[in-house]
Amino acid sequence: MSHITEYKKKTKNSAKIFSKSLKLHVNGVSHNIRYYEPYPFVVKSSSGKNLRDVDDNKYTDYWMGHWSLILGHGQKDVKDSLRKQIEKSWMYGTVNEQTVKLSELISKAVPVAEKIRYVTSGTEATMYAVRLARSVTGKKIIAKIDGGWHGYTSDLLKSVNWPFTESESSGIVNEEKIVSIPYNDLEGSLKILKKYAKDLAGVIIEPVLGGAGCIPATADYLKGIQEFIHKNKSLFILDEIVTGFRFRYGCLYPTMKLDPDIVTLGKIVGGGMAIGVMCGKKEIMEYADTTGKKKSERSYVGGGTFSANPTSMTTGYATLSVLKNNSPIYSKINDLGEYARKELTKSFDGKVIVTGKGSLFMTHFVKNGILEITNATQASMCDVTALHEYHFKMIAQDGIFFLPGKLGAISNAHTKADIKKMVG
Amino acid sequence: MSHITEYKKKTKNSAKIFSKSLKLHVNGVSHNIRYYEPYPFVVKSSSGKNLRDVDDNKYTDYWMGHWSLILGHGQKDVKDSLRKQIEKSWMYGTVNEQTVKLSELISKAVPVAEKIRYVTSGTEATMYAVRLARSVTGKKIIAKIDGGWHGYTSDLLKSVNWPFTESESSGIVNEEKIVSIPYNDLEGSLKILKKYAKDLAGVIIEPVLGGAGCIPATADYLKGIQEFIHKNKSLFILDEIVTGFRFRYGCLYPTMKLDPDIVTLGKIVGGGMAIGVMCGKKEIMEYADTTGKKKSERSYVGGGTFSANPTSMTTGYATLSVLKNNSPIYSKINDLGEYARKELTKSFDGKVIVTGKGSLFMTHFVKNGILEITNATQASMCDVTALHEYHFKMIAQDGIFFLPGKLGAISNAHTKADIKKMVG
Repeated sequence: MSHITEYKKKTKNSAKIFSKSLKLHVNGVSHNIRYYEPYPFVVKSSSGKNLRDVDDNKYTDYWMGHWSLILGHGQKDVKDSLRKQIEKSWMYGTVNEQTVKLSELISKAVPVAEKIRYVTSGTEATMYAVRLARSVTGKKIIAKIDGGWHGYTSDLLKSVNWPFTESESSGIVNEEKIVSIPYNDLEGSLKILKKYAKDLAGVIIEPVLGGAGCIPATADYLKGIQEFIHKNKSLFILDEIVTGFRFRYGCLYPTMKLDPDIVTLGKIVGGGMAIGVMCGKKEIMEYADTTGKKKSERSYVGGGTFSANPTSMTTGYATLSVLKNNSPIYSKINDLGEYARKELTKSFDGKVIVTGKGSLFMTHFVKNGILEITNATQASMCDVTALHEYHFKMIAQDGIFFLPGKLGAISNAHTKADIKKMVG
Repeated sequence: MSHITEYKKKTKNSAKIFSKSLKLHVNGVSHNIRYYEPYPFVVKSSSGKNLRDVDDNKYTDYWMGHWSLILGHGQKDVKDSLRKQIEKSWMYGTVNEQTVKLSELISKAVPVAEKIRYVTSGTEATMYAVRLARSVTGKKIIAKIDGGWHGYTSDLLKSVNWPFTESESSGIVNEEKIVSIPYNDLEGSLKILKKYAKDLAGVIIEPVLGGAGCIPATADYLKGIQEFIHKNKSLFILDEIVTGFRFRYGCLYPTMKLDPDIVTLGKIVGGGMAIGVMCGKKEIMEYADTTGKKKSERSYVGGGTFSANPTSMTTGYATLSVLKNNSPIYSKINDLGEYARKELTKSFDGKVIVTGKGSLFMTHFVKNGILEITNATQASMCDVTALHEYHFKMIAQDGIFFLPGKLGAISNAHTKADIKKMVG
């Protein structure tokens, strides 16, 4: 029986619901990546390491809410705090104390967070980071990485997917203000940055390339870029929406002794509820203070209706509190990630390169003579179809869920036995 | 005793917490408008019509979660459904049935919603609406209203606050692609639109100008704009984030027999949880379907981590279900709004013009010989300082909360006695 047949057989209720969803929604989904052939299963609940679908199939989940749920689905302490918050209501539209509590944790754990502003999504956070860089420097060009993914903001919608030379979308008007540089290639990157140096507002980089292949940046690369950027009086922005609080209690950048001007956070620090965070040095974030400033002096930065809402602040605080008080979580999940990479490499016997860091990992099926994966181009040259098939086979046959084609994230709810089953 | 002194005396805990917040956050807040002098009170819970602060002061709330909470804070049915959802967890990162249920309600109530896509905020929804209009038409210019507010997206950050000729912010790169037209002035608007007709992708309008003064558009104005736009093969976008499901079960536009191409929703349809919605005609929304399209053909539209998350979908569905099954809510709150406008006008005896529609109202203190308020310029010429003082006096003295300077929204939790107290 083919995997498609097997999948269809066990997901009949999903098929029915998704056929309704197709009528109502563009391609049946509200996020392009959530669709896969023949149709995605429909989740009815989640708990710990598991997703449960409307046909009562259970999946060990490595997608983990877009990699947000480092403690697993519906973690008890987070749930308890959320329950309590719901009794006090879920939307105030005003200032609340939960925000102060979450910010106290973040500011202690993330040195650059001298000032913080909460927004509603990662897309908003990177949009504002770019705006701030332009405001502070008075320059216009933003550099990003080939394959760098910072959400759908119009300000960064370029060179996301291979081929990186093509425009990502119709309907974009400011692409000439975005330039793209090759990851982990300092010489190649500096060559481009120098060309635009005069009007370069800043550079934005994920310290582990997420969507584009789960590829860590080398410390030397990031240091080299930072050195050029700071000499040039441009801003060095690190997008740690995926990596923040993922490998340690805090950001990844201090482990490389970096000195970013702005860091964006999201995902884990929201505990599964809607959040985006801009953290920055005081003198930079002050540009976003609109009080007493002329329009031409200020950087007009949100907020929106849901900024710093009490539910996200509460689930974020509860999540960070668990991580802070249970530091063994990081050594546990980092070790499991290391184990997964090692065992997958062994198990596929030369057919794959497994990238990643700590609890994040991704299996690339080698093709086109690729020998190493240090950038998005190499990742794109691998056999993406084989990866989708491998992920789909696990969904259909093994009750294991990776969003097809995407990296896996290990949570504290996963055990070594889970990883053994997954790699076996 | 001055109102400031009175306020400080009763908000001592708020003062302490906000002083911490000032150290951690830009201007102490995560949304510029949430700050007011000397400091905003800090909310600890909300229920029904009330906010309760950390000093145990109770306020009858007319801000109502950025005007989202049409049923009041923590409404029972919505809370029950949210409680149940929390037990099934609050983040799946995948397709869920709650989305289908909410979309079935929206698509039945909003004719243009032939296809729906959920995003995380209103800012994201309008960003995508603009992108779609540019993709569909192949043109670049977007027209908006003097004073029109569509969130902080870089694509619409122009002519928001008076004076409308000045740039709203430093750090914006595509302002030359946004043109601004005078509200409720068809001749003046068409003159400008004609000038840009060749490259005009679309126009985006709030049918009741929200942030800029709570001013309804006339049906003739909107019809005139629509006629020109459609003749010109541009897109007619209505931003109903504030007005959708505010005056009736559905959008405002069908009451004026309009035929928009895209409508954005948010606030009420999320029941207080993070949401943004793009609704559109099928042939337009299909541009956002990325499957099998070249990059240059598609409109790259999100999604993000929190799109269509099960909590927002659940609170949205519960809210619309209550509104659907209890249509008297609309006549009740619309009548209360009518009553508020009439009584405020009477009570201030010629000193004010009270604008609004249905359950939305705003008091403008007349200045500069203003005789009517049909656009944002007239609203800006009124005595904004007097309005702030009036609102602050109610906070300090009467236990009534309007976000200073902003319009008020009546919810189903308010009674005629509340309105009497507020206008008295």
